[in-house]
Amino acid sequence: MIDIDDPQDPRVEDFRDLNSVDRRPDLPVLPGGRPGRGLVIAEGVLVAQRMIASRFEPHAFLGVDKRLGELDDDLRDPSLAGVPFFRTSAEVMAEIVGFHLNRGVLAVARRPPLLSVEEVIADATTVAILEGVNDHENIGSIFRNAAGLGVDAVLFGQGCADPLYRRCVRVSMGHALLVPFAKFEQWPHGLDELRSRGFRLVSMTPDPSAVTLAEAVDAEKIGFLVGAEGPGLTRSAMAATDVRARIPMSRGTDSLNVATAAAVAFYERVRSGTMGE
Amino acid sequence: MIDIDDPQDPRVEDFRDLNSVDRRPDLPVLPGGRPGRGLVIAEGVLVAQRMIASRFEPHAFLGVDKRLGELDDDLRDPSLAGVPFFRTSAEVMAEIVGFHLNRGVLAVARRPPLLSVEEVIADATTVAILEGVNDHENIGSIFRNAAGLGVDAVLFGQGCADPLYRRCVRVSMGHALLVPFAKFEQWPHGLDELRSRGFRLVSMTPDPSAVTLAEAVDAEKIGFLVGAEGPGLTRSAMAATDVRARIPMSRGTDSLNVATAAAVAFYERVRSGTMGE
Repeated sequence: MIDIDDPQDPRVEDFRDLNSVDRRPDLPVLPGGRPGRGLVIAEGVLVAQRMIASRFEPHAFLGVDKRLGELDDDLRDPSLAGVPFFRTSAEVMAEIVGFHLNRGVLAVARRPPLLSVEEVIADATTVAILEGVNDHENIGSIFRNAAGLGVDAVLFGQGCADPLYRRCVRVSMGHALLVPFAKFEQWPHGLDELRSRGFRLVSMTPDPSAVTLAEAVDAEKIGFLVGAEGPGLTRSAMAATDVRARIPMSRGTDSLNVATAAAVAFYERVRSGTMGE
Repeated sequence: MIDIDDPQDPRVEDFRDLNSVDRRPDLPVLPGGRPGRGLVIAEGVLVAQRMIASRFEPHAFLGVDKRLGELDDDLRDPSLAGVPFFRTSAEVMAEIVGFHLNRGVLAVARRPPLLSVEEVIADATTVAILEGVNDHENIGSIFRNAAGLGVDAVLFGQGCADPLYRRCVRVSMGHALLVPFAKFEQWPHGLDELRSRGFRLVSMTPDPSAVTLAEAVDAEKIGFLVGAEGPGLTRSAMAATDVRARIPMSRGTDSLNVATAAAVAFYERVRSGTMGE
C-alpha cells in the first residue's frame, strides 16, 4: 500500500484524466499515433472484484481507505502479489481522475490480446452478435444481460463501440471483463464460421412478417443478431442469417431498447430450456 | 409562431434552467412551498409528438427552425390552436434552458390531476407495480418497455421517483405520457383493490426458491411487482402478493437491471398468449 498525497504523482498516471476525450487511459492503442494507452479501468468494489476474477490482470489500484478495506480479502489473492494499492483522499483522487468519483476505487489492467471468434465460440451454445451498436451503455447492458441469462459469448460485427471503454465496463457491472467476446475480422462473411459449427443465426427485427422469437430458438446452438436502435441490422447481415425473429407486441423501431430486446431473446432461449438451468 | 431573440424573454419562462436542482420547471408543486412549477417537459420531435397525442396538453413549444419544420403537421392539430411556438437559435435556446439541447425542440404542459388506481386498472389486464424504484432512467425504461410489450398501466407504491421528471419522460420516449399511471395512496394495502378485482399479484425476485416466471403468469389479470435493484421488494409488499416468481438463470441481485427484469416479465406475459396480439 502506497499513500498518495500529491495529485501530480507520476505513479498514478494510469488513472489520470479519465474523462479526457484525447488522453483518457482507456483508449485502445491504435495505429496512426492516437495517444491511447490501451488500459482497462474498473470502477467500484464490485467491478474491481470482477476484474480480479477475470483474464484482465490489474496492475494497480487507486482508492480511498474505506474501499481499500472492502477489497481487503480480494487483495490477498496470490495473483495480486506486488500489485500496488495507491491510497489517497477523495479530494486528491478527484484531482487525479478529473471528477469526483463516488465509487471510491479504481483498478487498472493492460488490455490482453483479443480472443478470436473461434476461441470464444468453441464451447458456446448461445451467443449474442452485435452490428452497429455504437453506444457504450447499450453494449454494457448487453454484457450484463448476457451474464445474467447464461449467454456464453458476445461477438462484434461492424460499427460497434469499444466494449472495454470505462463506461461500458461500469454499466456491464464488470461482466464485459468476464463474458468472453471477440470481433469478426470479416463482416458479415465471418458469420459463415458460426453456421459451419452448427449455430442457427437469428436476426432480431421488429418486422411483423418475421416469426416469433419462441418459434426461432429451438436449436442446439443459437446466435442472436441485434442491430442499432433505429436502423437495425443491415440487409447484408440479415441475409447472412437463417431466420428473422420478432418480439411479439413490440411495435416500431423505438419500442424496445437494443439491450432490452437482446435480454428478451436471451430469456426466450433460457425459457425454452435448451440450455437447462 | 413567435421569434425569440432575447434569452431573458419572460414568455419562455417555462423552459428556463431545466437542469437547476431548485428551480427547474418540471418539479411538482409540493406542499411546504418548494418552488416547483408543476410542468412536464417533452424533449425532441418524437416525444413532443407523443405529448400532443397524450392527455398532457402542451401550452407552448420552444425550438429551432428545423425542428419546427419537422413538427409542422402535428402543430396543425386543432387542439393546438393558439398554442405558441417560440422559434429561436440553438445558441439562445441553450441560454434559456441552461445547456445545449441537441434535440432542438421542447414542448411544455401543465400537470393534469393524477389518475386514480381505480381509473387506470378499470380495463387493464396487465399492470406493472413499482416499489422503491427511485431512478428516473429505470422508471423511464419501464414505461418504454410497458408500451412496447402491451402493459396497460404502471402503478407506483412507496419510494418511487417522479415519473414526470424530464429525464424519465425522455428515456421513456414519451411513453410516460401515454401509458396510464397512478400512485397508491396506501402501500401495500392498496394492493387489495387489485386483488379484489381479480388480479393475480406476482412479486419478481431472484430467490431460487420462487417459481419460474412462466409458471406464474397464467391468469386473466396480472400485476407484476418489481422493487429497486439491490434491496428488491420489501417484505410487506411481497407478503401482500399471491406468488413470487424468478427469471431462470438470473443470478444475484445485480444480474438484471430492474427495467430489464420488468421487460422479461412483460414479455413472458405476451408470450403466454393470454393477451393475444
